[in-house]
Amino acid sequence: MVHSSEQITQLYAELADIFGDRVSNAAEIRAAHGMDVVSFYPVKPPDIVAFPESTEEVQRIVDLCRENRIPIIPFGAGSSVEGQVLALSGGVCVDFSRMNAILEIHRDDLDCTVQPGVTRTQLNDALRPHGLFFSVDPGANATIGGMVATRASGTNSVRYGTMKDNVIALKVVIPDGRAITTATRARKSSAGYDLTRLFVGSEGTLGLFTEITVRLHPIPQAVAAAVCSFAEISGAVTTVIRTLQAGIPLARGEALCGLTMSAINRYSGTSYREEPMLFLEFNGTESAVQEQARAVQEIARSHGGEEMVWEAGEAGRDRLWEARHDAFLAAVQLRPGARTVTSDVCVPISRLADCMIETAADIAAASMPIPMFGHVGDGNFHLVVLVDPESTTEMAEAKTLTTRLVNRAISMDGTCTGEHGIGIGTIGSLEKELGDAVDVMKSIKRAIDPLGIMNPGKVLAG
Amino acid sequence: MVHSSEQITQLYAELADIFGDRVSNAAEIRAAHGMDVVSFYPVKPPDIVAFPESTEEVQRIVDLCRENRIPIIPFGAGSSVEGQVLALSGGVCVDFSRMNAILEIHRDDLDCTVQPGVTRTQLNDALRPHGLFFSVDPGANATIGGMVATRASGTNSVRYGTMKDNVIALKVVIPDGRAITTATRARKSSAGYDLTRLFVGSEGTLGLFTEITVRLHPIPQAVAAAVCSFAEISGAVTTVIRTLQAGIPLARGEALCGLTMSAINRYSGTSYREEPMLFLEFNGTESAVQEQARAVQEIARSHGGEEMVWEAGEAGRDRLWEARHDAFLAAVQLRPGARTVTSDVCVPISRLADCMIETAADIAAASMPIPMFGHVGDGNFHLVVLVDPESTTEMAEAKTLTTRLVNRAISMDGTCTGEHGIGIGTIGSLEKELGDAVDVMKSIKRAIDPLGIMNPGKVLAG
Repeated sequence: MVHSSEQITQLYAELADIFGDRVSNAAEIRAAHGMDVVSFYPVKPPDIVAFPESTEEVQRIVDLCRENRIPIIPFGAGSSVEGQVLALSGGVCVDFSRMNAILEIHRDDLDCTVQPGVTRTQLNDALRPHGLFFSVDPGANATIGGMVATRASGTNSVRYGTMKDNVIALKVVIPDGRAITTATRARKSSAGYDLTRLFVGSEGTLGLFTEITVRLHPIPQAVAAAVCSFAEISGAVTTVIRTLQAGIPLARGEALCGLTMSAINRYSGTSYREEPMLFLEFNGTESAVQEQARAVQEIARSHGGEEMVWEAGEAGRDRLWEARHDAFLAAVQLRPGARTVTSDVCVPISRLADCMIETAADIAAASMPIPMFGHVGDGNFHLVVLVDPESTTEMAEAKTLTTRLVNRAISMDGTCTGEHGIGIGTIGSLEKELGDAVDVMKSIKRAIDPLGIMNPGKVLAG
Repeated sequence: MVHSSEQITQLYAELADIFGDRVSNAAEIRAAHGMDVVSFYPVKPPDIVAFPESTEEVQRIVDLCRENRIPIIPFGAGSSVEGQVLALSGGVCVDFSRMNAILEIHRDDLDCTVQPGVTRTQLNDALRPHGLFFSVDPGANATIGGMVATRASGTNSVRYGTMKDNVIALKVVIPDGRAITTATRARKSSAGYDLTRLFVGSEGTLGLFTEITVRLHPIPQAVAAAVCSFAEISGAVTTVIRTLQAGIPLARGEALCGLTMSAINRYSGTSYREEPMLFLEFNGTESAVQEQARAVQEIARSHGGEEMVWEAGEAGRDRLWEARHDAFLAAVQLRPGARTVTSDVCVPISRLADCMIETAADIAAASMPIPMFGHVGDGNFHLVVLVDPESTTEMAEAKTLTTRLVNRAISMDGTCTGEHGIGIGTIGSLEKELGDAVDVMKSIKRAIDPLGIMNPGKVLAG
């Protein structure tokens, strides 16, 4: 898709008529919207950034872009890590930060409807007085719209599910300019094709979300969190797997390598043992939580775990999970000035220990520091390969290592991405993983976005 | 789609070459495949019924039908109720009864892979020695393939989710003849569009499933079931809603009207009170189950519930749930020779009591018996309107009543079908419910099945 600078000038003028100062072509605004937080991808700024405030305004943008065959790139918090927000062919970035209203909270139905620019912590702050919470927690303070787009998950998806499980309905502006509603607020439905799930994880390539209805959960009566160290990471992994197999409803189960723990201690000022570690959480009634905790301590002990160290009280738990959430940023600080190549494989849990052990051997042989940690209850873990993006040798080494890991995961019947999405970095891996199914995805893309204006170059090649 | 009898004769000869006696054009075989169990729809037999035994054989059928523009209708147990299996324009019925192997059970991963003709009870019998179960339970002994096709749910979806939540991956023969795999066995993935969820609920209109990987759950340590009667059905409904809002993980919560209870007593030889009734189940550890049961008894009491009557032991529980599963067949027996018009609305739970009370008033004014019961934890309930299909007056009355109910549900932000699917009976309701979104479904249908050979006339009009 090629467009001329005259086209952009003309489009900017038309958008300025509608949006006034809520549209920009300033270099610094454009640059800030052409990059994500810490990935190695070079900045690809959009030509224009617009800040709509309503579904109708989003429709105006889509209509103008469609008429001019100009790419549209949605932007939430910019916390995705696979280049999803890069404006590969320029175009109009739609920044949803001014569409951040919580529209309705249905306490009795355990759901709420929000605009896409609402952030995770903003939503949970608003829900707390109602005794409810939104469960999906990718760590970053992402927007709900962005989390829908990447099919995000995170630390407590092992118990409460991913975005796939927690989105009830979407209002979506599709490329032809219409705003459709994918479902009602009913908790389940067999009414036609599941468009909600088709748009969840579509990374901006099929339409722009303007309203999102999500499932909520009652804040549990009791919450207990603990850390438990192990001599080997395989012991931590096996503990979580045996826990799930016993039907114990673990709320979070995170394994972190010794290097990650050291990065966390430096970044967060904590003093955890710098050994393979499990961070655990239990939710339920007081007695259920105690029962679960006892059972898991027993399992951990028989797989080489030390005594669990409990965080009494909310403040302690918050510190613990903040430290876990900051693991990514902490990891980045291990090498000042570095950018990151991240990896996000997810394998059947029976293969997870093998996958992590084989990967640890690759890490030990690598020339750069590579913290490893993940959501082991789901079989999902991350590497943060800390690279100098100017060094072609390092970039090649990082690429080789992460490609080996993706191949390993696929050979174990796993996926190249558990929660980060495809973006621009893993299009080849998607094809390797799903083969001809990718052709079906392409036919759907062509059917819904025949002109290819929605976030071109992402998820699917050509 | 029109095809000549010469085409069918020719196709039959070609299929007979491949399938030998595993293909039939006998009138009685065709008739048995052109109807479901008890619905009012007139029989629409296919021209040919084939019984494939492998993915490759399914591909042969699809190739031959595509080359000849002949419709293909998949057939599991024939227990769907919205006319999904009717061969509206003739064609080839693909009966999956010979593809009923359980291919792999991955105990450590809590999943298994089966062929589509495996039935729900067959699967659970095979899983029991492994300490696992497949949770989705629509009552009928449906095939897993059929349950994928209609996005089935049932009594314990309130706790364990619907087919949408319990299908991990599918092998699907798409209309161009290729067999694609929609996902790996990883517990979660953000790898491209969620084709698994697109095919779940597609009612045979996008492709034929030949392998299905589903999620399993550990058999709970303790299970307790109880019945509790109420003076008014609203008390039963409110009890379930308050239970969910309190975060109590109810495993099943079914409300049944007095007429349904009377039908059950007659059909199953039970002696339940013939009053509005809740059937409840709790799963967990011994102490958790006791704690949940106490809490729910308290809630029930404050909403007009009598003392709960507990079923001690597995045999008692099995009797109880068998009685509940047989509610539909019991209802049919209330009026010998009647056929059924079923209704399957699902509304946000805050509106459920209102929806059922308003519907009860319609039922009281109706000229035929109409039992009402449902999965109230999901906001989903059924009417079984017992009609004489030869009576145009009765059919008109049934149509008016169920249309009023669908409109009521939609006005409450609910759906026309919680779990039965669209089939041929509720295409108009789907359009009323989702409007322009149906155009997106049609564009997807055209993209994947451009010749319209897959179960034509179902889900989407024209």
